Amino acid sequence: MKNILIVGAGLCGSLLALRMAQKGFKVTVVEKRPDLRTTVLDAGRSINLALSNRGMRALKTAGIEDEVNKLLIPMTGRMIHEKSSGKTFLSPYSGRNDEYINSVSRPGLNKVLLNAAEEEGVKIYFNHPCKSIDFENTTIVCDNTETQKEVTFQADVIFGTDGAGSVIRSAMINNPDFLFSISHQWLSHGYKELEILPDKNNGYKIYKNALHIWPRGENMLIALPNLNGSFTVTLFLPHKKSYYSFENLTTSEKVTEFFQNEFPDVLQLIPNLTEQFFTNPIGLMGTVKCAPLHYEGKVLLMGDAAHAMVPFYGQGMNASFEDVGVLDRIIENYKTTSSEWNWNTIFETFEKARIADAQAIGELSLDNFDEMKAHTGMELFQKKRKLELAFESEFPDIYYSKYSLVTFREDLPYAEAKRLGRAQDNAILSLLHEHKLDDTLSLEEKLEIVKERTELILEQENKPGYLHYTNSDF
Amino acid sequence: MKNILIVGAGLCGSLLALRMAQKGFKVTVVEKRPDLRTTVLDAGRSINLALSNRGMRALKTAGIEDEVNKLLIPMTGRMIHEKSSGKTFLSPYSGRNDEYINSVSRPGLNKVLLNAAEEEGVKIYFNHPCKSIDFENTTIVCDNTETQKEVTFQADVIFGTDGAGSVIRSAMINNPDFLFSISHQWLSHGYKELEILPDKNNGYKIYKNALHIWPRGENMLIALPNLNGSFTVTLFLPHKKSYYSFENLTTSEKVTEFFQNEFPDVLQLIPNLTEQFFTNPIGLMGTVKCAPLHYEGKVLLMGDAAHAMVPFYGQGMNASFEDVGVLDRIIENYKTTSSEWNWNTIFETFEKARIADAQAIGELSLDNFDEMKAHTGMELFQKKRKLELAFESEFPDIYYSKYSLVTFREDLPYAEAKRLGRAQDNAILSLLHEHKLDDTLSLEEKLEIVKERTELILEQENKPGYLHYTNSDF
Repeated sequence: MKNILIVGAGLCGSLLALRMAQKGFKVTVVEKRPDLRTTVLDAGRSINLALSNRGMRALKTAGIEDEVNKLLIPMTGRMIHEKSSGKTFLSPYSGRNDEYINSVSRPGLNKVLLNAAEEEGVKIYFNHPCKSIDFENTTIVCDNTETQKEVTFQADVIFGTDGAGSVIRSAMINNPDFLFSISHQWLSHGYKELEILPDKNNGYKIYKNALHIWPRGENMLIALPNLNGSFTVTLFLPHKKSYYSFENLTTSEKVTEFFQNEFPDVLQLIPNLTEQFFTNPIGLMGTVKCAPLHYEGKVLLMGDAAHAMVPFYGQGMNASFEDVGVLDRIIENYKTTSSEWNWNTIFETFEKARIADAQAIGELSLDNFDEMKAHTGMELFQKKRKLELAFESEFPDIYYSKYSLVTFREDLPYAEAKRLGRAQDNAILSLLHEHKLDDTLSLEEKLEIVKERTELILEQENKPGYLHYTNSDF
Repeated sequence: MKNILIVGAGLCGSLLALRMAQKGFKVTVVEKRPDLRTTVLDAGRSINLALSNRGMRALKTAGIEDEVNKLLIPMTGRMIHEKSSGKTFLSPYSGRNDEYINSVSRPGLNKVLLNAAEEEGVKIYFNHPCKSIDFENTTIVCDNTETQKEVTFQADVIFGTDGAGSVIRSAMINNPDFLFSISHQWLSHGYKELEILPDKNNGYKIYKNALHIWPRGENMLIALPNLNGSFTVTLFLPHKKSYYSFENLTTSEKVTEFFQNEFPDVLQLIPNLTEQFFTNPIGLMGTVKCAPLHYEGKVLLMGDAAHAMVPFYGQGMNASFEDVGVLDRIIENYKTTSSEWNWNTIFETFEKARIADAQAIGELSLDNFDEMKAHTGMELFQKKRKLELAFESEFPDIYYSKYSLVTFREDLPYAEAKRLGRAQDNAILSLLHEHKLDDTLSLEEKLEIVKERTELILEQENKPGYLHYTNSDF
């Protein structure tokens, strides 16, 4: 039996541990933090997330969908809170009724995964931060922060699922023999989490089944529902170089003035706003792309460690779970076709399958920041969404918006969703701009025109004789 | 008088020191290596470089062009060594006779700059590697490697010109408060330098006034002339995952077989080839992009520390010298318009002026790798070059090829050279592919068609209603 060591018992690491144990591997996990089932961690940091099809697919394979379903609150669309009118309207995520995303508690989901992994025989060492790795001998050294003693772990292979600030990735960067290419791009905006408490009857103060957005161009506030009737609110604001920035919002007066101007309805919903504002930390966001993902079949990066992204597509967790699913299928396929076990071949196949997709969803997530904070409040964009919803409703088997391609088409790689989705967005926006989708046309005629323009844009990209400059893609 | 501290006395640091001293600043330089005027360094590592207009412009401003001119060997074009025929042909760099690049010795040029800087009163500490920096107090700590003692330097501002492996940049990366975004992309190819010695009469064994290229698709060999009649030869080869790779070329037999197959004429020119091959080190190449370039007007990155690039456009040194020229002009302009001295404003202006250009030349340098190792040997590309040379010769004030825009138009920012140059390349290649530049047309008619198609491509990029995805540019 092969020994597997996993560094990091977050969402990705714990699902990976569960699946590997289910396949019969002997699995050990080390985690720097205490067990979140017995300790409350990280007040004020990304408490809930959006779970959608890609993540769900991997959870189903692990047989824990029933447990997970109990944690989910469906969100059928974006509830846009307009600034000028103070009104709200729901912008559905899809024209197909069975397509929606789900709000889920991060620690809640992590608990389910940790319990399932332990039931499957996985041994988890909490309070064991990894401080060094020997790639050649697949050995790591951890500090046991309870006993203050060093502990060494050895295995056949090591998986680095230790998140955006991965220690394993840092070790790869610092090893010049690796030729490890890395891009780490910080976002100019930071975030701060706030909370809307339940009403007196433990009910939801605002509409439960939506992802609420207050789009303000440069700034944005969002809110996702929790099972207990509360909402986790996240404020996205520039760190600096802006009138309304974390750097400038230094007093209760300034914070209150800011909310009065930009989000007056939220002031009513959060009575102790300034207290929360000055208690909770400012979070950083960034995009990480890197290559290679593995070292000679001995160590593999997965999840945020391999492809941290900004949160605006709600795909960080889904992409990490999809990583586990992709590896899972590669191993299954390998088992049935190969006589000798070779991790190098498996990791190489995983890397080939996954790098372009990881980079694609990283870039799509940046696209969606502009879409959420600015476009959702714009007329042209709203026209586009209205048309797309009509297409999806009327021609459910034919049309998928970019959002649907990314979120609801777990059969489609992210890179393909990016290619087709961007072309489609460009097509519709330019056609609307050119007044070529007027209401004298039938919906079917409009769809034909959009498809033609999309084809044209995709063809343009592949025109023979054209040079393609791919180097800036990293 | 303001105190300036410069970390790194390479080409960029020593020119910067000279210019700042000429402006009346008190300048101190620390350099990790010994004084190259008294010690021979780095056998087998990038001994000569191509100096062209952008670099020359900054050297002229510093008043040292006469000294530098003595070191230069004009190279008027690429001398292509064909594989199949064994023949050579000259592909000029420009259709204008006064446009060429120059081979120059790196240590030779560095000596001129160090001498001039010292004559201007600059104090240089050699054997002083910088090991830490205090950004807030603009202080660095160096090891004096001769006395083994720590030395602390303090100044009003610090310039990080410590090259591709910059210690100052690393300190920025490791400081989470900086939100320092970085992309470091290694090239899959490495390089190894070799030498063609002069003939018995100290003459040149191959044509002196060209940059010799042996384009072999995946591999390439180049040679640049030195003043003493020798040539510095550089072999570019994949590190691994290829039949001919540094990983595989482990014996004299394999190296000889490789040269016999790919570069038979070079075997004649370098009798002790395998000895050189196994003595000289393998060099790594990569592209570094980063932002921001400065910390609150206290520390500024320049040269390779800010924008290391692969060597294929011969613009690494030129871009570094241009950095000095740009900063120079910003300071001059600032002096005449501002009453109070503010480095933050100056560095902010430099950063705004320079980041896009630094990223552009980094990407253009990657483009040119494909052009040199593969395209120069292809018929379509040779047709394009022939046409461009005719345009440049016949319409010298109107047409500039991408190569000319980058290399000979020091008045044009790199970003603009990239935008226009790439569109123009795409235009000509697609028109040739579509047989729309047949010889029934006059040269003037052809130029009109090329200009029209170029405009069309540029317009396409700016089409209203289209979304632009800039995030992947980092």
